[in-house]
Amino acid sequence: MAAPQIPKTMKACVFDKNGGPIVYKEVPVPKPKSNELLIHVLYTGVCHTDLHAWKGDWPLPVKLPLIGGHEGAGVVVAMGSEVKNWKIGDFAGIKWLNGSCMSCEFCMQGAEPNCPMADLSGYTHDGSFAQYATADAVQAARIRQTTKLDEVAPILCAGVTVYKALKTADLRPGQWVAISGAGGGLGSLAIQYARAMGLRVLAIDGGDDKAKLCTDLGAEVFVDFTKSKDIIKDVVAATNGGPHGVINVSVSERAISQSTEYVRALGKVVLVGLPAGAVCKSAVFNQVVKSIEIKGSYVGNREDTAEALDFFERGLVHSPFKVAPLSKLPDVFKQMAEGKILGRYVLDTTN
Amino acid sequence: MAAPQIPKTMKACVFDKNGGPIVYKEVPVPKPKSNELLIHVLYTGVCHTDLHAWKGDWPLPVKLPLIGGHEGAGVVVAMGSEVKNWKIGDFAGIKWLNGSCMSCEFCMQGAEPNCPMADLSGYTHDGSFAQYATADAVQAARIRQTTKLDEVAPILCAGVTVYKALKTADLRPGQWVAISGAGGGLGSLAIQYARAMGLRVLAIDGGDDKAKLCTDLGAEVFVDFTKSKDIIKDVVAATNGGPHGVINVSVSERAISQSTEYVRALGKVVLVGLPAGAVCKSAVFNQVVKSIEIKGSYVGNREDTAEALDFFERGLVHSPFKVAPLSKLPDVFKQMAEGKILGRYVLDTTN
Amino acid sequence: MAAPQIPKTMKACVFDKNGGPIVYKEVPVPKPKSNELLIHVLYTGVCHTDLHAWKGDWPLPVKLPLIGGHEGAGVVVAMGSEVKNWKIGDFAGIKWLNGSCMSCEFCMQGAEPNCPMADLSGYTHDGSFAQYATADAVQAARIRQTTKLDEVAPILCAGVTVYKALKTADLRPGQWVAISGAGGGLGSLAIQYARAMGLRVLAIDGGDDKAKLCTDLGAEVFVDFTKSKDIIKDVVAATNGGPHGVINVSVSERAISQSTEYVRALGKVVLVGLPAGAVCKSAVFNQVVKSIEIKGSYVGNREDTAEALDFFERGLVHSPFKVAPLSKLPDVFKQMAEGKILGRYVLDTTN
Amino acid sequence: MAAPQIPKTMKACVFDKNGGPIVYKEVPVPKPKSNELLIHVLYTGVCHTDLHAWKGDWPLPVKLPLIGGHEGAGVVVAMGSEVKNWKIGDFAGIKWLNGSCMSCEFCMQGAEPNCPMADLSGYTHDGSFAQYATADAVQAARIRQTTKLDEVAPILCAGVTVYKALKTADLRPGQWVAISGAGGGLGSLAIQYARAMGLRVLAIDGGDDKAKLCTDLGAEVFVDFTKSKDIIKDVVAATNGGPHGVINVSVSERAISQSTEYVRALGKVVLVGLPAGAVCKSAVFNQVVKSIEIKGSYVGNREDTAEALDFFERGLVHSPFKVAPLSKLPDVFKQMAEGKILGRYVLDTTN
Repeated sequence: MAAPQIPKTMKACVFDKNGGPIVYKEVPVPKPKSNELLIHVLYTGVCHTDLHAWKGDWPLPVKLPLIGGHEGAGVVVAMGSEVKNWKIGDFAGIKWLNGSCMSCEFCMQGAEPNCPMADLSGYTHDGSFAQYATADAVQAARIRQTTKLDEVAPILCAGVTVYKALKTADLRPGQWVAISGAGGGLGSLAIQYARAMGLRVLAIDGGDDKAKLCTDLGAEVFVDFTKSKDIIKDVVAATNGGPHGVINVSVSERAISQSTEYVRALGKVVLVGLPAGAVCKSAVFNQVVKSIEIKGSYVGNREDTAEALDFFERGLVHSPFKVAPLSKLPDVFKQMAEGKILGRYVLDTTN
Repeated sequence: MAAPQIPKTMKACVFDKNGGPIVYKEVPVPKPKSNELLIHVLYTGVCHTDLHAWKGDWPLPVKLPLIGGHEGAGVVVAMGSEVKNWKIGDFAGIKWLNGSCMSCEFCMQGAEPNCPMADLSGYTHDGSFAQYATADAVQAARIRQTTKLDEVAPILCAGVTVYKALKTADLRPGQWVAISGAGGGLGSLAIQYARAMGLRVLAIDGGDDKAKLCTDLGAEVFVDFTKSKDIIKDVVAATNGGPHGVINVSVSERAISQSTEYVRALGKVVLVGLPAGAVCKSAVFNQVVKSIEIKGSYVGNREDTAEALDFFERGLVHSPFKVAPLSKLPDVFKQMAEGKILGRYVLDTTN
Repeated sequence: MAAPQIPKTMKACVFDKNGGPIVYKEVPVPKPKSNELLIHVLYTGVCHTDLHAWKGDWPLPVKLPLIGGHEGAGVVVAMGSEVKNWKIGDFAGIKWLNGSCMSCEFCMQGAEPNCPMADLSGYTHDGSFAQYATADAVQAARIRQTTKLDEVAPILCAGVTVYKALKTADLRPGQWVAISGAGGGLGSLAIQYARAMGLRVLAIDGGDDKAKLCTDLGAEVFVDFTKSKDIIKDVVAATNGGPHGVINVSVSERAISQSTEYVRALGKVVLVGLPAGAVCKSAVFNQVVKSIEIKGSYVGNREDTAEALDFFERGLVHSPFKVAPLSKLPDVFKQMAEGKILGRYVLDTTN
Repeated sequence: MAAPQIPKTMKACVFDKNGGPIVYKEVPVPKPKSNELLIHVLYTGVCHTDLHAWKGDWPLPVKLPLIGGHEGAGVVVAMGSEVKNWKIGDFAGIKWLNGSCMSCEFCMQGAEPNCPMADLSGYTHDGSFAQYATADAVQAARIRQTTKLDEVAPILCAGVTVYKALKTADLRPGQWVAISGAGGGLGSLAIQYARAMGLRVLAIDGGDDKAKLCTDLGAEVFVDFTKSKDIIKDVVAATNGGPHGVINVSVSERAISQSTEYVRALGKVVLVGLPAGAVCKSAVFNQVVKSIEIKGSYVGNREDTAEALDFFERGLVHSPFKVAPLSKLPDVFKQMAEGKILGRYVLDTTN
């Protein structure tokens, strides 16, 4: 394959200070380091985390000025001298974990997201709200050439995260998993991954539209928290003793603690959603006598990413999305802050 | 072996109502069912749970009248027609789980303590505060003929419980385990089991006597909560990043929640102790980003019991104890209620 | 439910010596021991093992005279005094492992089939080729009241065995499993269980009929050993590097050893089929450098049985079968010995 | 720390063709790539594999001309621009796996030794029989500053290999492990690691000197294959039913197959040693009915290496060694080829 022409400059959305104006402008194309890929980003998803990065309301400070974005899908156009196992023209994805040290105790056990030197796309490393971006070749996601790059973008963060949570729940095919917050973006992906993994799904959310969405996606049971008089009792009854696992993608602190009550004895409660300042409260007597596990699940590693993409690429998981031009990112952020987005926005970097 | 003479009556400590007088008196020797052993109890430990059973201050009601006790060590003197794999003269132990259905979903996975039909020694089934007691042959603990029956009694409950908790922590030899409440009866056994399992032990408790006890038993580090200005910081520093696992045998609610803060990323917090009404509070953000597990650990199953006894019988674990006559049980309860007991009391059933 | 009328005698197929005549005759209905169920058998599958029991060509001697059969499905009509968790009228299954000691080191870890005191239906314990049979309540299979008893019979041995083998392979949804001997009775069940567990299936067998059967049941790829010029190469190519697991239900010694060559690095080869006197040969260099596991998988335990039945009862697995009268067992054995049976025979005990 | 002076040339042992003369001579000091460390090697172990690399009698061709050696211990003196988490002056080890792609399916699961692009020290990458050598920073072993570099050298390959094998056996503290070939270099390390992991050790080897060595190192039982009339019976008897795991470091094909016979039901046989052309033969009936696993174990990964070093650095494992000058490598190879070496040779690179 002939080496592609790489321009000197590109369009990108940049902000200079947290909460300041997000400017769509011409900036230099970055140069890959010896271990990095240069990826021509065609599409990029927009995640709630990007809003936090812009606002700067998380404890960890962001790089400034910053190009945000960590769900970028595109094509490898250049790579550093020490990159192995990639070639120009490969499809590649930019994900939350851009790179890590690969030699600390966490990296050594495949838990690179827990690396103290973790480098984060669109946070500590310029991200995918641009036409070109760099990514450590070791962490970049490998995407098949037959994959649609707009559709796959949200899988790179949302899909991987819920797949990882389901792996963390460590269930066997045929067991029940409850998904709390099943009708949202993460939840609707979680239902589909769970089904593809042979699990039986009980979905928890509010409203008839959510009920229809969840059962259409494969949930066997829907518990409507706006109608149920006793959620714990209803969940236990529907699953003949409680689900073997629970995926908490809801951001309700109360829903999280409830899940420790309805989970089956010996069951696993997985924490994924991050409601600000939330505390998971579990009655010690209940947790001991029922031998329950409560497990935090963060983002996926290299293997989780490859597996989550494989399910998507085999057609087992779909993510509804709308496309907007990259230049409209400020509008998308505005809608997101107002809670008006259903599904996921994917930005087209050509305009 | 000639079948032993079994008397018609025996001495036992009985109470008719919760909190009522505990009477040391002559009662009929029980008859084993077809699946049961009749065990001539020589020694029996006294556990805090026995005090709860007498007081009746737990949600689950006890059988009345009741013979308490669930750490009984003795000799098989008779057995039912369908008992397999035992013979008269075998040493046997009576433990908390006297019997279970063996065919529910929990029993099927070896989690018999979680069986809804669990039958509990000294609680729903007459226990070991007597010269004879019955036990389901499937659950009775097998004790080697070379074992001292007084010494082994506390292993049957306290030993098994901490060994199970250490298994639940699922650590590798060479990793760090913190034991919160390390200087108490459970804690001091936990230190010894942990060492025998190849773990490095950080002990947390208060006072110089406890410090000496813990380090004598094999703890590499002692953190004194009465002296430390910042327990979390001290524990993290001493273990180069936090222990890989924590065993909470302390009954301090605050200590439990602290353990979710000092545990290493990817680490496991095990809940064992049951402070009344306690809630384990864990910050969701911390638990997710550090990928921490919080796991309830209840009492051991058949295999845990056999393994815990094997460590004891190989001389790797010791439990300090004092012997008192069975008839003095009310005095022992009184001291226990006043928090005056160091180590464990073992009752001699001959007087 | 009113206690059913239990006759004094029943029809059964009995033989007095190995290889001797199998007589369909009137014999006494057995009495359940205190730990046993008495099951009114309505249907019973016929397994190759039954033929071995009759011939007596296995190292372990059978009880004589013997009523064979270990895939019996029926209704509980009586039970012993110590039976828990069952009631008259429940549907129940008789399986290969009739009972075990429940207190040896193998039973303690849920590996009851490995118990040295294992009692085997239709082998050391009169089995299901009769209108009534006894089964240890702990091991008897629990069947839902909505289940068709003729269809479920073959699941009790064949279904459980392949499900157990798939669990032993310890694969993740999305991984590849090769089934060697996929077109036979065990193999066709294995394909269906594998699909329900989220696995991708490569089937190996010979002939176009087998090819159609396997792909109809869900195999993505079929490798025909009568046509392939290089099975190892073809299997590796079709699975992009070799399957992550292999289930050997074929009885070809050569096929077993081949599976150690085509399995993916880090993969698991499971041995299930028992070709007489066969030896699994694995090149040490290959096995070490590719870090391959070869695992023997015997019959399922209580939990495996319950899970295998659950997949069946949820309609995810089907087993083709023909019904014949119990009295025709000798004919069925004859056809079996001649290798003329496709699918499974199920006997109706009413005539 | 001031950057050390790095000379232009160094002493090294080089050969130009397989089996050709090994010349101790002055060669250029290598330059580290952007992802590499330059390590000033002070000591290097000599492993049997080095002899194979020189002879060229393995299927995989070596780089030529070649500097062999893959147990090098030294000090970081320079590093590439993208190296993270290391600094000049750190102690570092060169091990068999010098580097890998870190992005294939095997690297993604921490199985870097199985990477198709694995780069091997002293085989496809110039190794440690020199005063300076390069190593991928991700794979280089981290050695504490307090460690003696001569003593630690053999741990980098031999120690890690047996530790990995013991992890592969997946045993619990208190279980029995048999070590076949226990009196050799790998075996004597295996005994010590097993003890530190809480395992009970049965050692198999021949002769009274080996017996004394093994029991001195912590084996509870020694079975002498030169004296035993029935090894299988003796091993089973000494371990009350067979060891739960077996580590085959012996290079006897017969010993390997025997280990499938004496291992306990449900036990694990681990293959480590690589006798040329050897085949592991296991009777299928025995392996299935006893549910035995046979597992290949190759060299350790990053985490295994760190853990194996930690046991060594905590003083739990010792490796007897003799020191010789680097220039005497040909003599060491000669002794090795003649089977005359007891323990391990470590070469001092200063002369």
